[in-house]
Amino acid sequence: MYELGIVKRHITRADRVATDRLGEIGATTTHEAQGRVGLMQPYMRPIYSGARVSGTAVTVLLHPGDNWMMHVVAEQIQPGDIVVAALSAECTDGFFGDLLATSFMARGAKALIIDAGVRDVRDLTEMRFPVWSKAISSKGTIKATLGSVNIPVVCAGALVNPGDVIVADDDGVVVVPAAWAAKTADAASKREANEADKRAKLAAGVLGLDMYKMREPLAAAGLKYID
Amino acid sequence: MYELGIVKRHITRADRVATDRLGEIGATTTHEAQGRVGLMQPYMRPIYSGARVSGTAVTVLLHPGDNWMMHVVAEQIQPGDIVVAALSAECTDGFFGDLLATSFMARGAKALIIDAGVRDVRDLTEMRFPVWSKAISSKGTIKATLGSVNIPVVCAGALVNPGDVIVADDDGVVVVPAAWAAKTADAASKREANEADKRAKLAAGVLGLDMYKMREPLAAAGLKYID
Amino acid sequence: MYELGIVKRHITRADRVATDRLGEIGATTTHEAQGRVGLMQPYMRPIYSGARVSGTAVTVLLHPGDNWMMHVVAEQIQPGDIVVAALSAECTDGFFGDLLATSFMARGAKALIIDAGVRDVRDLTEMRFPVWSKAISSKGTIKATLGSVNIPVVCAGALVNPGDVIVADDDGVVVVPAAWAAKTADAASKREANEADKRAKLAAGVLGLDMYKMREPLAAAGLKYID
Amino acid sequence: MYELGIVKRHITRADRVATDRLGEIGATTTHEAQGRVGLMQPYMRPIYSGARVSGTAVTVLLHPGDNWMMHVVAEQIQPGDIVVAALSAECTDGFFGDLLATSFMARGAKALIIDAGVRDVRDLTEMRFPVWSKAISSKGTIKATLGSVNIPVVCAGALVNPGDVIVADDDGVVVVPAAWAAKTADAASKREANEADKRAKLAAGVLGLDMYKMREPLAAAGLKYID
Amino acid sequence: MYELGIVKRHITRADRVATDRLGEIGATTTHEAQGRVGLMQPYMRPIYSGARVSGTAVTVLLHPGDNWMMHVVAEQIQPGDIVVAALSAECTDGFFGDLLATSFMARGAKALIIDAGVRDVRDLTEMRFPVWSKAISSKGTIKATLGSVNIPVVCAGALVNPGDVIVADDDGVVVVPAAWAAKTADAASKREANEADKRAKLAAGVLGLDMYKMREPLAAAGLKYID
Amino acid sequence: MYELGIVKRHITRADRVATDRLGEIGATTTHEAQGRVGLMQPYMRPIYSGARVSGTAVTVLLHPGDNWMMHVVAEQIQPGDIVVAALSAECTDGFFGDLLATSFMARGAKALIIDAGVRDVRDLTEMRFPVWSKAISSKGTIKATLGSVNIPVVCAGALVNPGDVIVADDDGVVVVPAAWAAKTADAASKREANEADKRAKLAAGVLGLDMYKMREPLAAAGLKYID
Repeated sequence: MYELGIVKRHITRADRVATDRLGEIGATTTHEAQGRVGLMQPYMRPIYSGARVSGTAVTVLLHPGDNWMMHVVAEQIQPGDIVVAALSAECTDGFFGDLLATSFMARGAKALIIDAGVRDVRDLTEMRFPVWSKAISSKGTIKATLGSVNIPVVCAGALVNPGDVIVADDDGVVVVPAAWAAKTADAASKREANEADKRAKLAAGVLGLDMYKMREPLAAAGLKYID
Repeated sequence: MYELGIVKRHITRADRVATDRLGEIGATTTHEAQGRVGLMQPYMRPIYSGARVSGTAVTVLLHPGDNWMMHVVAEQIQPGDIVVAALSAECTDGFFGDLLATSFMARGAKALIIDAGVRDVRDLTEMRFPVWSKAISSKGTIKATLGSVNIPVVCAGALVNPGDVIVADDDGVVVVPAAWAAKTADAASKREANEADKRAKLAAGVLGLDMYKMREPLAAAGLKYID
Repeated sequence: MYELGIVKRHITRADRVATDRLGEIGATTTHEAQGRVGLMQPYMRPIYSGARVSGTAVTVLLHPGDNWMMHVVAEQIQPGDIVVAALSAECTDGFFGDLLATSFMARGAKALIIDAGVRDVRDLTEMRFPVWSKAISSKGTIKATLGSVNIPVVCAGALVNPGDVIVADDDGVVVVPAAWAAKTADAASKREANEADKRAKLAAGVLGLDMYKMREPLAAAGLKYID
Repeated sequence: MYELGIVKRHITRADRVATDRLGEIGATTTHEAQGRVGLMQPYMRPIYSGARVSGTAVTVLLHPGDNWMMHVVAEQIQPGDIVVAALSAECTDGFFGDLLATSFMARGAKALIIDAGVRDVRDLTEMRFPVWSKAISSKGTIKATLGSVNIPVVCAGALVNPGDVIVADDDGVVVVPAAWAAKTADAASKREANEADKRAKLAAGVLGLDMYKMREPLAAAGLKYID
Repeated sequence: MYELGIVKRHITRADRVATDRLGEIGATTTHEAQGRVGLMQPYMRPIYSGARVSGTAVTVLLHPGDNWMMHVVAEQIQPGDIVVAALSAECTDGFFGDLLATSFMARGAKALIIDAGVRDVRDLTEMRFPVWSKAISSKGTIKATLGSVNIPVVCAGALVNPGDVIVADDDGVVVVPAAWAAKTADAASKREANEADKRAKLAAGVLGLDMYKMREPLAAAGLKYID
Repeated sequence: MYELGIVKRHITRADRVATDRLGEIGATTTHEAQGRVGLMQPYMRPIYSGARVSGTAVTVLLHPGDNWMMHVVAEQIQPGDIVVAALSAECTDGFFGDLLATSFMARGAKALIIDAGVRDVRDLTEMRFPVWSKAISSKGTIKATLGSVNIPVVCAGALVNPGDVIVADDDGVVVVPAAWAAKTADAASKREANEADKRAKLAAGVLGLDMYKMREPLAAAGLKYID
């Protein structure tokens, strides 16, 4: 892990159908369905609201101030992938703009997740290329040091293996291990089905206290009502 | 204060008419009108732009990672209320999503103010249920520990007593003690009336320096013009 | 520098044509064109998305909690200027709202850049008066202490001399020394022309690796492809 | 609450004996003993390590950049008091230095708790006057606006009423309502007695798993041991 | 990975000799020697200065506000281990104090690395039990939810597998994969030997410019000396 | 300003006597004496407590992740200088350790001020080479891009011209323009003399309210005493 100067060309991508299903479901239900693990830190924010995507991770490890490897990772993108860019140390520079986005889109990338900054966000918004990042910054980068492509990386606090499913929307970014994709999609679908019924009841004025039968455990825990 | 495991059912809510008037006026003028006190920290941000609401506070004290009391507070909501959720320690978990929002709306809640995270923000935005929060996060919570409902709480640096007026918009969240609602609304209205006239003058090119008669005190303070 | 209680009335403004050209080009390309210097910290964010402006700086040095000098600087604004407000210490108070914006617009100001907070952001958005700030806050300020107008200031980490060009958009805020305006605009235009061609190639699927001839230096640096 | 321009001269201070006992016990056990409420935010740090104090709160509400009221509160200090300084908005200026510390010590103050900055920390350290603050800064303040003394304030997220017990050490700052002082001291002493026995067992190699009889509930919750 | 409710009892620990050697060398040289990867975020700070330790990682995944698993991990500690505690979401609560430290020390633990808060820091300092943490806080935790022990975790941005070497000192916390321990220790020793010679030259007034033969490449890059 | 690839060899240093006098006086009184300007942001902290230094600035502009210019600046150091290192964008990497410190000390440098990270802090502490920095980090840097030496820079929010006086201690870092050194030292000495008398009075129990004759202006501002 974390070997530098390596590009892994062949990776096993998560099942496409399961990946797509998770994209329709969204980050929060996916996160719940897999047991509340795999969430990136909440400082990762979308550059525009309303996007919801899923895809298979191609990963890249970058060094502060150096985006050379972004060009290397571009070649490894296959349609349906999401690029996940991790940093070896904190940095808010703008590693990615409209030119790289043009290249990534031409390769079939669906989004970029980067634990650093991006720029040209007005252009990216017009192109509808969604990015989740830690910062927005005009500051460019150099091309001098080697990172790696398609090694396991830690991005915004979450471990991402190449081929894992990434689900991202306004709530944040969730990583689903490739091997868990189908079962997580199943569990997530079940949660969703379940929620429709609950939503109707709550909308009709039924209280969660009653729907979830919480009154007794709350009393047992010592809750007291006073006037 | 801060007694745990307590739900206070009967609280005295601020005057409805004054509360509504403050909602039309907005957070900033309200804050000025009551002497620049009662403002929550500026890290409290709306999940979508453009909302402006006022309402009477029902309060809830939560513990990190535990949203059990959100279901307890739901039952205490009356139409026109705003739920104010305080935390006993820092936390960015997502304590609130579309199901709880459905329930809160069914009870007549106008908004949620929470010193922690929320999720399902795309759904909440579509439902037009406004939330001011410290974070957005998919991370769910458990239901294991008792907080309290309708006790005085400190939310994002501001003391909120149950029944106080909450005024929130893009500028932030202001708390008006229930007993001050009417006089604050009066003072705020007066400021607003006053501002229309000033705005016209400034738009016509009159300088604040002249309108507010600042030239003399500035000179007295030692201001020097040089070329 | 940093002499207090001074208003400099006559400043040399950057060339208008060059200033306007940089505004069409935007912050990021401008920043690249002048060698990646002069960028304000990325915490400076626009109060609404999509604005792109350029103008000549009139500067003001403020003290925490005191916006008296904002009225003094208003008089020094000429059409096409952008007010750059620096603080002598950290502060998130709301130094600027719709009344001052009305006055600034009447004087011909194109934007405000402030290393502190602003308020009335809904009104400012409706007025389409763009502001880049560190915070949004209802908290008002007093009028008691002298700062200075049109002295060199440090705003969000960047040195701004009166008359310098300010270019601001969704990517951030860049300062171009007045004397560099024309050559920076030339360099920026050249970059833009250059980019159109690159964009077309990348959109057609050409890789940056080939377009920029990176394969050889990457191999020389030791990059290894594995399966 | 939060009325400005008020100095309350007569306040009811918490019981001296209970206050002193809590000071010997420290912040963490006190916090536990009163049910995990009343803790200031963890950004409040001591200017030097190893101090542990308790005292009765005299409170002061300050505005950003203005320490006029620090002189007003000095007169209200009685031996054994701790000054708790709250801010009406975020500020990191240095509101307090060696001169004010000399005055506070002459009045019998035991410490300062301030949700802003202090300065002269080398002198304060030599004087052994402990301060818990949000920041350290040379930036001075002016004397122009009225706050209040001995009103309830919110300091670093905690509500403090004049006369409450403050307990502060390297772990942080805890507020104990005056009326709870004796019972909290009793509960805290009981915890301490309890801990000595536990500490001996743990030091002898007994596991918390066994001492607290956690094995069964852990298994019931589904914990699985694998090889 | 990230399976919940699991305790792995048998893990393969890094070579003890290599682990000890890295502890003598310290975090920075270790980090250099393994290619500048594996460093935790710089917000991880020691509770007291001057400690330098190395050990083999036993890992634990915790949830915000819940330290139940700290008792579970205690049983898995072997002499020479360092406990690495990761969180499933951001939290600053105090998960660890003098009682747990007593237990950990009795089991032979050399340190704790935790991406959250700790308390009783005065006691921990007296006990000389070193802790690197994100925060210090009196806030206690409950015992209600299952995490896991000895699974791979992400702690403060670094991936830690059970058995990996942890090296921590005033410069920060570095993770060395168990399989790399010996070769990293060799590389680090070589660096150290190398540095002694360099240090002597630099102390004698030789410039890095000459010692590292930088003058030519600097000139080639375009560096110009002016008067 | 901010021209890259430049080393200015001859700079005009502030008067040595005035510089030394300011070092005895310290950051806070110096800052007051020059009118409360020139203070770096309070996030700049010393790596160890108790150091107080002054010196003449030699400046260096660095890029994130690249410390090449630190070797270039070393050659420009003269005895009594303090190196001030500014960054072109945010970075927390460790740009400086014990080897560079050895070289700087051999050249006569008295301290380093850097708006980024440093490492080997235990060694630096033992060597008593004081550093004020934004972060501590083991993360090393490369040597690939040109910055400049002895150009004006913005460091932690303050403008520093080569030759300016730097005064740093536990309260922070202050910049005094070279031309102001003598008059600032005079003003600072006067303040100090003044303070000794005030300190004695305050220690004797005289209140600031009386010593500064504040009672009347406070009453005029509307301060009310209540019981």
